[in-house]
Amino acid sequence: MLLLHIVPDSSRPLYKQVVDEIMTKIDSGQLLPGDRLPSTRSLAHTHGISRLTVLKAYQELWSLGYAESRPGSYTTVRRRMRPAGLPVSFRGKESEGTSRQEESSLRQSHLTAPGSPVNFRNFFLDPRLFPIADIRRCANAVLQPHLAALLNYMPPSGYPPLKASLAAHMQEYGVAVSPDEIIVTSGSTQGLKLLASFLHRPGRHALVESPTYNRFLALLQEEKIPYVPVPMGRKGCSLSALEKACRALPSFFYTMPSLHNPTGITTSQKHREEVLSLCEEYGVPVIEDGYDEDMKYFDRMILPIKSMDKKGHVYFVGSFSKSLAPGFRIGWIAAPSEAAAPLTETKLLADFSSDSLSQLFLSEMIRRGYLQKHLRRLNRIYSRRMRLFLSLLEEGCRNLPASFHPPAGGYLVWLALPGLKAPASGFSGHFLDYGVLVAEGEDYFPHSAKPPFIRLSISLLDEEEIRTGTRRLIDGLECLYERS
Amino acid sequence: MLLLHIVPDSSRPLYKQVVDEIMTKIDSGQLLPGDRLPSTRSLAHTHGISRLTVLKAYQELWSLGYAESRPGSYTTVRRRMRPAGLPVSFRGKESEGTSRQEESSLRQSHLTAPGSPVNFRNFFLDPRLFPIADIRRCANAVLQPHLAALLNYMPPSGYPPLKASLAAHMQEYGVAVSPDEIIVTSGSTQGLKLLASFLHRPGRHALVESPTYNRFLALLQEEKIPYVPVPMGRKGCSLSALEKACRALPSFFYTMPSLHNPTGITTSQKHREEVLSLCEEYGVPVIEDGYDEDMKYFDRMILPIKSMDKKGHVYFVGSFSKSLAPGFRIGWIAAPSEAAAPLTETKLLADFSSDSLSQLFLSEMIRRGYLQKHLRRLNRIYSRRMRLFLSLLEEGCRNLPASFHPPAGGYLVWLALPGLKAPASGFSGHFLDYGVLVAEGEDYFPHSAKPPFIRLSISLLDEEEIRTGTRRLIDGLECLYERS
Repeated sequence: MLLLHIVPDSSRPLYKQVVDEIMTKIDSGQLLPGDRLPSTRSLAHTHGISRLTVLKAYQELWSLGYAESRPGSYTTVRRRMRPAGLPVSFRGKESEGTSRQEESSLRQSHLTAPGSPVNFRNFFLDPRLFPIADIRRCANAVLQPHLAALLNYMPPSGYPPLKASLAAHMQEYGVAVSPDEIIVTSGSTQGLKLLASFLHRPGRHALVESPTYNRFLALLQEEKIPYVPVPMGRKGCSLSALEKACRALPSFFYTMPSLHNPTGITTSQKHREEVLSLCEEYGVPVIEDGYDEDMKYFDRMILPIKSMDKKGHVYFVGSFSKSLAPGFRIGWIAAPSEAAAPLTETKLLADFSSDSLSQLFLSEMIRRGYLQKHLRRLNRIYSRRMRLFLSLLEEGCRNLPASFHPPAGGYLVWLALPGLKAPASGFSGHFLDYGVLVAEGEDYFPHSAKPPFIRLSISLLDEEEIRTGTRRLIDGLECLYERS
Repeated sequence: MLLLHIVPDSSRPLYKQVVDEIMTKIDSGQLLPGDRLPSTRSLAHTHGISRLTVLKAYQELWSLGYAESRPGSYTTVRRRMRPAGLPVSFRGKESEGTSRQEESSLRQSHLTAPGSPVNFRNFFLDPRLFPIADIRRCANAVLQPHLAALLNYMPPSGYPPLKASLAAHMQEYGVAVSPDEIIVTSGSTQGLKLLASFLHRPGRHALVESPTYNRFLALLQEEKIPYVPVPMGRKGCSLSALEKACRALPSFFYTMPSLHNPTGITTSQKHREEVLSLCEEYGVPVIEDGYDEDMKYFDRMILPIKSMDKKGHVYFVGSFSKSLAPGFRIGWIAAPSEAAAPLTETKLLADFSSDSLSQLFLSEMIRRGYLQKHLRRLNRIYSRRMRLFLSLLEEGCRNLPASFHPPAGGYLVWLALPGLKAPASGFSGHFLDYGVLVAEGEDYFPHSAKPPFIRLSISLLDEEEIRTGTRRLIDGLECLYERS
């Protein structure tokens, strides 16, 4: 019989006590991989707590990667990867290496199976955390005969109740927009695409942070929009370089002030004010990519640039890909009001409207408070995972020139590798030999000078995978510095 | 007690007998609007038939607009519209008139409420026919924890099992394509957009049928692609005009050989062969819009142009909007194999991938045979509705110059109004005064000469609505011809 130390009158919630007790027993080896955990009923009975508490605890253990369960079966201790003692070659299994062929890498399973590399590369959410049961509940509520008409085309700018919810959500960020200023898009990818073509004029350039989101660069190339890099410093883009670029050319500015991809930097309120006043001064529209606005779990006080936009200069782009699941291809633009109608026209010709089912499910998720509950859970879990990762990485890099700045939340760490030259197979090829997938820093730089960096995402990894992965990373790093 | 004449050994299925018997009783006034139909249990008991048979019959009556039911309540005879004796002005309710502001018209209910105009204008499917219960079953099967990883990004070209199903579906049309030649798109709207920008080169024109799908014209304008009209004759576009245009300019050709929108024309196999050989001769790529390929219910033998394409000239665009529900923003391109990779790149930058939930549900709908079952039902119901509409329209136009050619299936009738000049409010304004919404023919012509036509869609209407609507249409037509 499993006996846990539970303190009924403690200020710590009961379910957390259950989680921590079981985690300790697993970490200390008292419970072994494959061991069956007691049924929720019997554990509740033994400890005089409610079954719901135990269920919640088991769900959390599953999310944290400590437990496994299948429908209709017992919950067991998860068989976790053994840390790799020696570097193992994984090349046979992952021949793509640094290739940008997303297609084939996406066909593979995203999760780390025993013996496969730990994935710090792909910036997808951990599907073990998707609130599947809540989504299913919403699907059942929405897929009813009397709601059938909603499965016709949606208005091109989005399902009105969802637009209202998104406007309310923006209010929580401190941004006052009306539902009429919201355009629902098929992911933030489409939001960026619509804005790039909407803001482009002959002779107008794009100003981009350097480094920046690599897919936005690809988009600019496709749209044949010339771009000018504005270097990122420790606290955001260089304001003097931004001013110089604004003054030199008619342009629009693409920026990620919160949890910048790839650097993880979150700029200060003051920096944001200065960016906005510069852009206002030179008549430069701003695309504010808020793809990760909901995940500033270490620091939630900084408001989006859009919150200060009184003159209609800022186009905020939002996403659910990093806060719910990318499979809902739903994002949004909060646009200056006079831009909403022409953007909706462009949206209509792009795909008529975004998927009705996803819009309906999402709207129901928000109406029932499921999304908010899920966000709180995601913040809790990833703040824990990130804290762990940062402490392990800091410890591992202590005697190495490699360095990073801790992010204010999110999933990304941008690791500088000063003094290193990429091996022939690239950094990603090198680290793959150590059993970790990493993203090449050079992909994020819009110009030819590409200092040595790798981008590390913990979005797919639980704590155990982070532990194993970080050990392998550090091994790979040490080898690189020894050789150099 | 409701007594029906049921013949157990007849070759007509029992449920059809129940449907026909009840319809006759309603049409003859023996059952009145609001009358309660017996419970399925009691009707089954009284007539010694299975309850499932009765359920199926009630569902069919509901689809046909004869019955109404709400969850947990009795089925009743539907309160149907009274035919309008005198023209009624509906302007107050539908102030949009001919405006192209889809947005606001989409916010309104699509179905005909008593006293509101009969909608021959919007080309949306009748939501009473959406297979909601089957979709819900698929949603429940797919939204399971062990499938959570599927809610991450899909491969940009689509969910592999769905691509395989679509390739198999194309085989049923006589088109041999491999899953690798399929790109799943966010509706056929996105398919057309991706292809227009993919096939565009500086100096290359678009050849379009005249009339043609109005939104494709808007797309060409947005992409700044110049276009040349090729006039439609009685049996498809003029081949001599097509050849002349092909010879004159580098171009690509956009065509709808089956159930052409707006004319309803389905071209012959021979016409298709000639179109293809012309386009091959002049190196003109073909976009074949097969948006309604599944609805050739009066004539299923004609193969798509793509089926004859041996040289990689034809891009087939498919859709589920007219065969399942437009809310699934899922369509596909069947592309020549060397074009699949670059089209996938463009797709990735447009919205990364199409909605995962809709792709998963649809794939499950196909796997279980639900989609095929649904298509058979749709064909059955709309062939009946269309037959009714054509016979009423023919009768009504007998003594008028107005004329049309019966389509081979689908939803559209293209009504020529020779000798008429549109009134100041447009034809749509005139007919609205008679209680019917129609689409202005002039919107579909790519050049300035716009002969008088209206497009009539029965997609949203059941048989009763078709009866009422056609009476109103004929009244409006007679008045137009009297005045002229």
